[in-house]
Amino acid sequence: MINNDNDRVVFFDIDGTLLDTSNFAETARKAAIGLMVDNGLPLDKDEAYGVLKTIIREKGSNYNKHFNILTQVVLGHEDPMLVALGMVTYHNVKMALLRPFAETIDTLIYLKSRGYRLAVISNGITIKQWEKLVRLNVYSFFDAVITSEEVGKEKPDNLIYDVALRKMRGNPEKSVMIGNKLKEDGLGAVNAGMSAILVNSDVTEEDREFIKKNKLDIKIIENIGDVDTIL
Amino acid sequence: MINNDNDRVVFFDIDGTLLDTSNFAETARKAAIGLMVDNGLPLDKDEAYGVLKTIIREKGSNYNKHFNILTQVVLGHEDPMLVALGMVTYHNVKMALLRPFAETIDTLIYLKSRGYRLAVISNGITIKQWEKLVRLNVYSFFDAVITSEEVGKEKPDNLIYDVALRKMRGNPEKSVMIGNKLKEDGLGAVNAGMSAILVNSDVTEEDREFIKKNKLDIKIIENIGDVDTIL
Repeated sequence: MINNDNDRVVFFDIDGTLLDTSNFAETARKAAIGLMVDNGLPLDKDEAYGVLKTIIREKGSNYNKHFNILTQVVLGHEDPMLVALGMVTYHNVKMALLRPFAETIDTLIYLKSRGYRLAVISNGITIKQWEKLVRLNVYSFFDAVITSEEVGKEKPDNLIYDVALRKMRGNPEKSVMIGNKLKEDGLGAVNAGMSAILVNSDVTEEDREFIKKNKLDIKIIENIGDVDTIL
Repeated sequence: MINNDNDRVVFFDIDGTLLDTSNFAETARKAAIGLMVDNGLPLDKDEAYGVLKTIIREKGSNYNKHFNILTQVVLGHEDPMLVALGMVTYHNVKMALLRPFAETIDTLIYLKSRGYRLAVISNGITIKQWEKLVRLNVYSFFDAVITSEEVGKEKPDNLIYDVALRKMRGNPEKSVMIGNKLKEDGLGAVNAGMSAILVNSDVTEEDREFIKKNKLDIKIIENIGDVDTIL
């Protein structure tokens, strides 16, 4: 029974789609900065947070030595105690806040019960993305995670969608991308011949007009729980 | 008042000395292996643990891709889901078990009240060692962490002890190394002109004879709480 359907794949983005990341990194970074300043980093907290944000902008958010550079910039040398304090605090707060949206699990169960196979397409590092699925305890729902690290191209590049469809043996016409970004998730998917559903997106009125005028198969819903109104 | 005493330094080893690491890594690794096997790693748990131990022996315990290699060896390719599952489980169990010996904190308070300054001398990576002190919430007791990473030589090499004494401006004759290993902590310290105290050590009767015959200033106690019988 499932076999007839197994070219129907729902691909998910993770951050902001399955996983509630609103204010997540900011809260964790501010907690880390707070303890670093309390333990001797000689700036006030707002200044220190500003310096950290500049470093993150320059190095990218996947870089893992933001706090090392922060102490180098402020003190002229790396301070391993402050770096360790920042890293542990950031990590602990992030883990404490890591959670799926309220209706994520119900939606995954619903899609499986409808015979879809599930996978993730993500701009990021493969093992890190699986780590999130493991920590959320939803890894068993997914057959594959396709990442920009693996493919060498980021969403919305066609290659990452093509690799994902091939890997899952998905029929693009019967497959759907669910994400929160119009360009990466929406346009990327329709360019690959799939349809798309946007959740928690910040699409503007102009974006909606653009989608309508070009007859793009992109639907916009408020909440991941509303996926059952479409699929 | 403290100033007269500030060339008196007590240096500590971390693992097995401040921190109860008995069966710690083994428990965490077995939990990780258990979940990896339950989720599809095609070996039985004892076999898989045996393969992991071989990898750790070959690569060293500070290497951070043991689980990647385990999946490569067993499956012929890296399986990022199983790697993520192993890493998260290992990390979570290790963090859950991370704790100081019962009398560690009392002993640190006692030594500070006696006017000693405290530091760590450790074979390891500087920020990782500070991370342990941060997670145990004892980092405020320590003025410095001197590591083999920083010095380029491991205990019992004289250089790491010399760098530590210089960095702390410690008088070797008034300073003490507290650790759990005769060679690394005991002999290393006395060769640098300091005395040493061994706790939780597995010194044999022969070791005790050797210490006595050579009149080495190495004392052996059962429990870190007994430091107050010596200092």
